[in-house]
Amino acid sequence: MITRLSQLFVRTLREDPADAEVPSHRWLVRAGYIRRAAPGIYSWLPLGLRVLQQVEQIVREEMDAIGAQEVRFPALLPREPYEATNRWTEYGATLFRLSDRKGADYLLGPTHEEMFTLLVKDLYSSYKDLPLSLYQIQTKYRDEARPRAGLLRGREFVMKDSYSFDVDDAGLEASYQAHRQAYIRIFDRLGLEYVIVKAMSGAMGGSASEEFLAVSPTGEDTFVRSPAGYAANVEAVQISAPPAQDASGIGPARTVDTPNTGTIVELVDIANAQFPRPDRAWTAADTLKNVVFTLVQPDGRSELLVVGLPGDREVDPKRLEAALAPAEATPVTEEDFAANPGLVRGYIGPAALDGGPARSYLGVEGPLKVRYLTDPRVVQGTAWITGANVVDTHAVDVVCGRDFTSDGVLDVAEVRDGDPAPDGSGPLSLARGIEMGHIFQLGRKYADALGLKVLDENGKLVTVTMGSYGVGVSRAVAAVAEATCDDRGLAWPRALAPFDVQVLATGKGEEILDAATKLAEELDARGVRVLLDDRKASPGVKFTDAEIMGMPTSVVVGRGLAEGLVEVRDRASGERTGVPLANAVDYLVAVAGR
Amino acid sequence: MITRLSQLFVRTLREDPADAEVPSHRWLVRAGYIRRAAPGIYSWLPLGLRVLQQVEQIVREEMDAIGAQEVRFPALLPREPYEATNRWTEYGATLFRLSDRKGADYLLGPTHEEMFTLLVKDLYSSYKDLPLSLYQIQTKYRDEARPRAGLLRGREFVMKDSYSFDVDDAGLEASYQAHRQAYIRIFDRLGLEYVIVKAMSGAMGGSASEEFLAVSPTGEDTFVRSPAGYAANVEAVQISAPPAQDASGIGPARTVDTPNTGTIVELVDIANAQFPRPDRAWTAADTLKNVVFTLVQPDGRSELLVVGLPGDREVDPKRLEAALAPAEATPVTEEDFAANPGLVRGYIGPAALDGGPARSYLGVEGPLKVRYLTDPRVVQGTAWITGANVVDTHAVDVVCGRDFTSDGVLDVAEVRDGDPAPDGSGPLSLARGIEMGHIFQLGRKYADALGLKVLDENGKLVTVTMGSYGVGVSRAVAAVAEATCDDRGLAWPRALAPFDVQVLATGKGEEILDAATKLAEELDARGVRVLLDDRKASPGVKFTDAEIMGMPTSVVVGRGLAEGLVEVRDRASGERTGVPLANAVDYLVAVAGR
Repeated sequence: MITRLSQLFVRTLREDPADAEVPSHRWLVRAGYIRRAAPGIYSWLPLGLRVLQQVEQIVREEMDAIGAQEVRFPALLPREPYEATNRWTEYGATLFRLSDRKGADYLLGPTHEEMFTLLVKDLYSSYKDLPLSLYQIQTKYRDEARPRAGLLRGREFVMKDSYSFDVDDAGLEASYQAHRQAYIRIFDRLGLEYVIVKAMSGAMGGSASEEFLAVSPTGEDTFVRSPAGYAANVEAVQISAPPAQDASGIGPARTVDTPNTGTIVELVDIANAQFPRPDRAWTAADTLKNVVFTLVQPDGRSELLVVGLPGDREVDPKRLEAALAPAEATPVTEEDFAANPGLVRGYIGPAALDGGPARSYLGVEGPLKVRYLTDPRVVQGTAWITGANVVDTHAVDVVCGRDFTSDGVLDVAEVRDGDPAPDGSGPLSLARGIEMGHIFQLGRKYADALGLKVLDENGKLVTVTMGSYGVGVSRAVAAVAEATCDDRGLAWPRALAPFDVQVLATGKGEEILDAATKLAEELDARGVRVLLDDRKASPGVKFTDAEIMGMPTSVVVGRGLAEGLVEVRDRASGERTGVPLANAVDYLVAVAGR
Repeated sequence: MITRLSQLFVRTLREDPADAEVPSHRWLVRAGYIRRAAPGIYSWLPLGLRVLQQVEQIVREEMDAIGAQEVRFPALLPREPYEATNRWTEYGATLFRLSDRKGADYLLGPTHEEMFTLLVKDLYSSYKDLPLSLYQIQTKYRDEARPRAGLLRGREFVMKDSYSFDVDDAGLEASYQAHRQAYIRIFDRLGLEYVIVKAMSGAMGGSASEEFLAVSPTGEDTFVRSPAGYAANVEAVQISAPPAQDASGIGPARTVDTPNTGTIVELVDIANAQFPRPDRAWTAADTLKNVVFTLVQPDGRSELLVVGLPGDREVDPKRLEAALAPAEATPVTEEDFAANPGLVRGYIGPAALDGGPARSYLGVEGPLKVRYLTDPRVVQGTAWITGANVVDTHAVDVVCGRDFTSDGVLDVAEVRDGDPAPDGSGPLSLARGIEMGHIFQLGRKYADALGLKVLDENGKLVTVTMGSYGVGVSRAVAAVAEATCDDRGLAWPRALAPFDVQVLATGKGEEILDAATKLAEELDARGVRVLLDDRKASPGVKFTDAEIMGMPTSVVVGRGLAEGLVEVRDRASGERTGVPLANAVDYLVAVAGR
């Protein structure tokens, strides 16, 4: 059955929607594929739904191919299982919570580890039942603080989530690798340029995890790569700490007057002018900057946290968030400073914190009880220029391990182009990507919390080990749109396009519409999915709409008909080919690969 | 690819689940098709999901066939559109409501009239764009007071809902009839025995509506039929009022002592003994019973409501609920009686209420301000024995229109087998059914509330008229199971069965499993969907499980193999046929209709 544009529920828009930040969002709305229903919540119009269903089908086929079995869980879930794993609390404000008419607590599932674990526990009891992989393609909910970019970060979205169950670590590794291969096939079929990077496990817990990122300048994730193959999300980069240094030649820490040093640059300038190093100039990397945050736990408890890092680097907010999750670091307020007069803004040094074994250089009494974590570069024996906890005053030759210690390491400084890869594989380069898939070796966290055990070969109860694996299905629609659209509209790869061919009847004669309809019907009979633009509209409008809507091929049946010609246009390349009407069906069947 | 039962994620249960009230629920759980996640909320296991997806596909095909276009809305919806139509309030406790992290109100969609109306308003503006029918197959939420019977009344469920948009009433009628025909084809394909009955529109609003009920003794709905074709849900029966009577020959109302008349039967006995009628005996139908309720509006306001009806009939709770929706009638409490001493329990008569023009027969002063609604049989000139608002006292010859009036008619008395059909088509018989589909002529209610207008042929803005149409997709799985299961398990019709054929390898020899596997593979190659029971289990276990799981055909490869025979079993009829192994593939391909 051919679809007629005159009857298709779609309207293209001439203007960009006000809230569209990225091209895929702009074009999916303008082309009539999706419409916003609420912030981060979208309705799928017929064209968009066809793309979504095709992504679903590709994912389904590849999951079936590795022997994963499809199930479907509810989205409305009881509180208790999530309470057992503490995720009811840990998810914080990102979880949509509600009560039913009897006052029982429910949530809208952001991911389903608990439910799958309980279901397998319900049905299975022996190692003979394993390995097992289950998946669902289902609507998920996360109350994102900043829903953005249309489908790229929504609050209601479609995800394929799967879960593997194995009796031992080798089994988990095999299930993980099978999923990894399936994901490679999925993203290859979607036609995405992607990278597989080391990732943080975040709220999911577990040990190893990798992300599939679609390379895109509008992506929210930043990743790094080295020439020799290191690849990681910046959140997951663990920088290699330098070796401890010999500080025996460094004089005692001393304070110096540093008036008007509001910035690190000013501080370095003063240092070089007033107390120059003999060997080289001071740089920002010689300064130890101490940044104050409030660390808020999911249950609401909070405390101050000071992060010490070399002054040439900023704290990367996403690395910080990932490192501290499920706790959150929020900016410190005026009130916090007022309540802690020992924290002298702009001049905070480790001596004011609770880490130092020797504060004689400053004579500070009764240090604050503040959690102090330092960058991995702040190792034993390194000497720093840092705040002296007095306005307009800094301390010099403050040696780590001698003059202060910290409560631990926190690796949250920004990663920069040219930084060495942690594995020694060369300098890193940064790029951005859209998280399309995430695979986790969960291990026994959920099985332990919910008591999923099976009898092993020796009749002994052992805890099952699990993996969890996600694909952003609705996000994939946007990611492919983002990768393929241009300044004229969408340009779908054939595997995802709602239709193979858009037939445009351009011109007023009855015979033009007749010829276009006949061509569309013949293509349809040959298995080509056809959208016929039969509207009473000008050729210009039809050309523009065809480019916005983005079917891979369009055929113009119009002026050339008098000479027995139609014009075939390739959306992606813009190439135009005159084809005799008599050959058009065969030509287009070949182009469409039907 | 053949599916091996040894690897399929399923376990049959030997015991009925504790909460299973109806056979379909019992067997769907015992056969491993579904599992309960919370009250009224179920997870679909692989076998169940296959059935569900097949129902979805049938529905999709028939909706596409009438030119309806598939879209998909979110389930998480903003409050505002539902506020505009007042359904945010009217839905009462049945609506799942929640707030997001910013405090904005949301609901989980129970049905999507508002959202579709707004989307069409967003895209369309002319009569030329209509007619239009849109549909979705989507997860819906209703916080039912009494979720029951597994999938038959769930709180999270899958529905196909569609909406038609027309410029005038004739268009709506055509769209409605198209849907009606599509529903007939859908329920025919599902193999259900069903009736189409007049229905109440309930919370949906609108004028005409019909329900498709699957005839089933476990159904929640009661419907009536007459020999000549009248059919209605009891909720929608509108009984025909008798003509007004001439009461001129009836003497003035008078009170009589009626000690110990706690029941209507006792009252009638006393009446016949103490003040007999000359023409015939008094019956319960001569008494006017007045039942008190508290009427609660969705916004919480409440008032007393007295329903007057002939004493031989009870108030039907479901007719009452349907007639008063969105308000609810709740039982009156001791406190209500205490607060209204004018309401003498067991002896309430119209004179105590605010309806009567002439209360001289009782001399009651200052009647209560109570809403009083009467049965359609209580017409002008009818005379009644009724309460006299004094303990142990009744009033006789109380004539409607002379001695009292009511505030209106409320048709909520029970309908009984043998009652006359309202259209004169003969006596009614009652039966029960499961609501599978509901089609509504909504008219302009939603378009008015949300401002959906288009320009008509004369360039004038007209309000669009709408229909809404629902199919219970997940409920259909249960309804078909309910109609086809027996005391041994499920017995699917071929169109919905997860597999066509279950191949049972029964016996220990390697050659039996080999022959069964070979047969399964050959069937699979011929397009038959095969489930191979390759488990290390006794023949008895395999036979029992095959009957519980309910594939239409099973093949036993076992003892007969020595003579080159397999046994083909038809699940529904129980028929067993020996078939030579050499012919088995052709035989089964034919049976499966592949």
